[in-house]
Amino acid sequence: MISSLIYLDNSSTARPSEKAVSAMMPYLTTHWGIPSTPHQKGQELYPFLAEFYKTLYAFIGAKEGAQVILTSSGTEAVNHVISSVYRDVTLSTGKNQYLTSKADEAPAIMAISHLEPFGCINKMVEVNSKGMITPQAIADCLSPRTALLSLSWANGLTGVIQPVAEIAELCRERGIRLHLEATHVLGKLLYDLEEINPDYLTFNGEQLHGPKGTGILYIREGIRCSPFIFGSADQGGMRAGALNMPGLAGIAVAAQETLECRDLLCTETARLRNEFEQKILKGFPETLICFKEQERLPHCTTLLFPGIANEALLFLLNRRGICASIGGGNFQQLALILSFSGIKEHLAHSAVSFSLSRYTTEDEIERAVSIIIDSAQLLLRLSENISRK
Amino acid sequence: MISSLIYLDNSSTARPSEKAVSAMMPYLTTHWGIPSTPHQKGQELYPFLAEFYKTLYAFIGAKEGAQVILTSSGTEAVNHVISSVYRDVTLSTGKNQYLTSKADEAPAIMAISHLEPFGCINKMVEVNSKGMITPQAIADCLSPRTALLSLSWANGLTGVIQPVAEIAELCRERGIRLHLEATHVLGKLLYDLEEINPDYLTFNGEQLHGPKGTGILYIREGIRCSPFIFGSADQGGMRAGALNMPGLAGIAVAAQETLECRDLLCTETARLRNEFEQKILKGFPETLICFKEQERLPHCTTLLFPGIANEALLFLLNRRGICASIGGGNFQQLALILSFSGIKEHLAHSAVSFSLSRYTTEDEIERAVSIIIDSAQLLLRLSENISRK
Repeated sequence: MISSLIYLDNSSTARPSEKAVSAMMPYLTTHWGIPSTPHQKGQELYPFLAEFYKTLYAFIGAKEGAQVILTSSGTEAVNHVISSVYRDVTLSTGKNQYLTSKADEAPAIMAISHLEPFGCINKMVEVNSKGMITPQAIADCLSPRTALLSLSWANGLTGVIQPVAEIAELCRERGIRLHLEATHVLGKLLYDLEEINPDYLTFNGEQLHGPKGTGILYIREGIRCSPFIFGSADQGGMRAGALNMPGLAGIAVAAQETLECRDLLCTETARLRNEFEQKILKGFPETLICFKEQERLPHCTTLLFPGIANEALLFLLNRRGICASIGGGNFQQLALILSFSGIKEHLAHSAVSFSLSRYTTEDEIERAVSIIIDSAQLLLRLSENISRK
Repeated sequence: MISSLIYLDNSSTARPSEKAVSAMMPYLTTHWGIPSTPHQKGQELYPFLAEFYKTLYAFIGAKEGAQVILTSSGTEAVNHVISSVYRDVTLSTGKNQYLTSKADEAPAIMAISHLEPFGCINKMVEVNSKGMITPQAIADCLSPRTALLSLSWANGLTGVIQPVAEIAELCRERGIRLHLEATHVLGKLLYDLEEINPDYLTFNGEQLHGPKGTGILYIREGIRCSPFIFGSADQGGMRAGALNMPGLAGIAVAAQETLECRDLLCTETARLRNEFEQKILKGFPETLICFKEQERLPHCTTLLFPGIANEALLFLLNRRGICASIGGGNFQQLALILSFSGIKEHLAHSAVSFSLSRYTTEDEIERAVSIIIDSAQLLLRLSENISRK
């Protein structure tokens, strides 16, 4: 059963690549030192360390003066940003309004809401019927007291990409710091970081086929950013605690591979995703594809199966060997995100998200399509039988 | 050179055990899911997860109602404690004094000092001439506004063990929360957690021969403790971010092994440490052994080499293949810690700390002794030549 599992939940977590795992091994076995110790066992790490950071700077498109910090997750990196904006902006300027969007993920929403006991105001920007956060919607929320906009660059369940260049422009004009959560975007979208020029960028290692327990915080040159974890002078004093060298190696090599596979992912994985959508639509014509006309990430899709409860479908698919998602974990519930875009409740609760990876095969897609169509038909018959009674 | 390196800096970091690394592998290769996903790939982890947590509870001596949280380091765990006491105690009661000791480590000292912008007061308890934090010294610092005492159970450089049972008793009487940092103590000391009953206990995975990027936060039953990293509901909502399953496996297996090796460490490693001290004393009679009469950890020692600068000795030893420590990283500078105990400055600056592990061999100790004696003699001759001029 396990061996034939079709894994279409790559936005939640993804299989670590063999190269990434191999890259970790020397630092778990031979070079197990930490760079903060001033003897051979620590210092022997520096050439490798320099190489891995260089890879990460290139991957992000970060300039030399920027800071790139290894964290234990994208979630920690998001918390770092929000906590440090409170310390570095709110405490000195009194600006206490924090914006995120209704389409956003749990870490930003919860980290911001936990600033409320400290006198901060949490405001969530509306998402429109296209799943988009428009610069206008943001402008409508701004006040002279806005400190930060924390935004997911794209939604990992629906794939909708936000117009971050325009949003960044607006934030610059209004003197508001901008944080982009880029976990679902990196390696899946061509972009020029300099053009967007956010103050902070964060991502998680897992979705790049890197190891669990890794994430990255990028800080633009010239942005003051306090540490989140205090203690030692590791990573230029920006994150205390002995450097997780195996984790750094793993995420750097995963990032490099992601970059090398980007064209493949943007074409071949997108082709498979489109084929997946079309074939399901053909076999189960009631299917609705969410935000199909929008600029979307190449690897994921949210489908609506009218008349079917998404929990029931997820459960049945799981029994039949397909892993998919209806939100949860770092995501808000998928139905909730969709309802914010005006999708009616009964439809929103029929939504299932599927996310592919570069490891997804044509054969898997064909098998998945057939299982999904069959499962949807079965559940629809059952629900029609119930409603007839 | 590397292969014959004699590693005596196990309080800074230690070699991951083969068993711990092997235990991580299934979760980097086959079972790479995350438990927060409600499908097979996530759910297949639960039996293993339960087993690893069970091991950790047993290792700590934690009762069922306690919480044991996997963090990314002991440093993160310390920051978690201090940040949550601010949120859970200071904000509701106004108690704003935070105590740590002058013999303490950087994470507690710095995390507390970074609460100062929020109106908190940082007070460092004096350490006496024996390297000890006495209950009386703590009582002298207490005020009705004291919220927390954060204390290193033992110093990982000098080995001095603090009288935590009496200190815990005092904290209970005075209604003060107690956090014990136990990284250097676990697996190296027999104790009964129930007898001490601290509110929080933290440790780092590395010093137990576990993987980098792991730490543990224990919270006693009945103690309210907010999360530090906000977001998903992972680990009962206590730490957001997808669970680092390879890390959990690694630290749990390392903890189990540490427990199994405790008797060996407390006898054989202590014997080697004592032999190390005695032989150096014999070959270089000027040597002073710090806090020799105190109750000390079995695996480490701080030696004073009067007339020799510790940086010079550390540098020479490193060139000759011995890794030792003069503080730094998570530690304060060793000379500073010693000066707080009244050791005169010129002596304090001659101090080097050596920490063994269960992997340290008789042969390594013999070779180390001979190199250290020779190096000390050389540096002493050089310094005497200089002072004669």
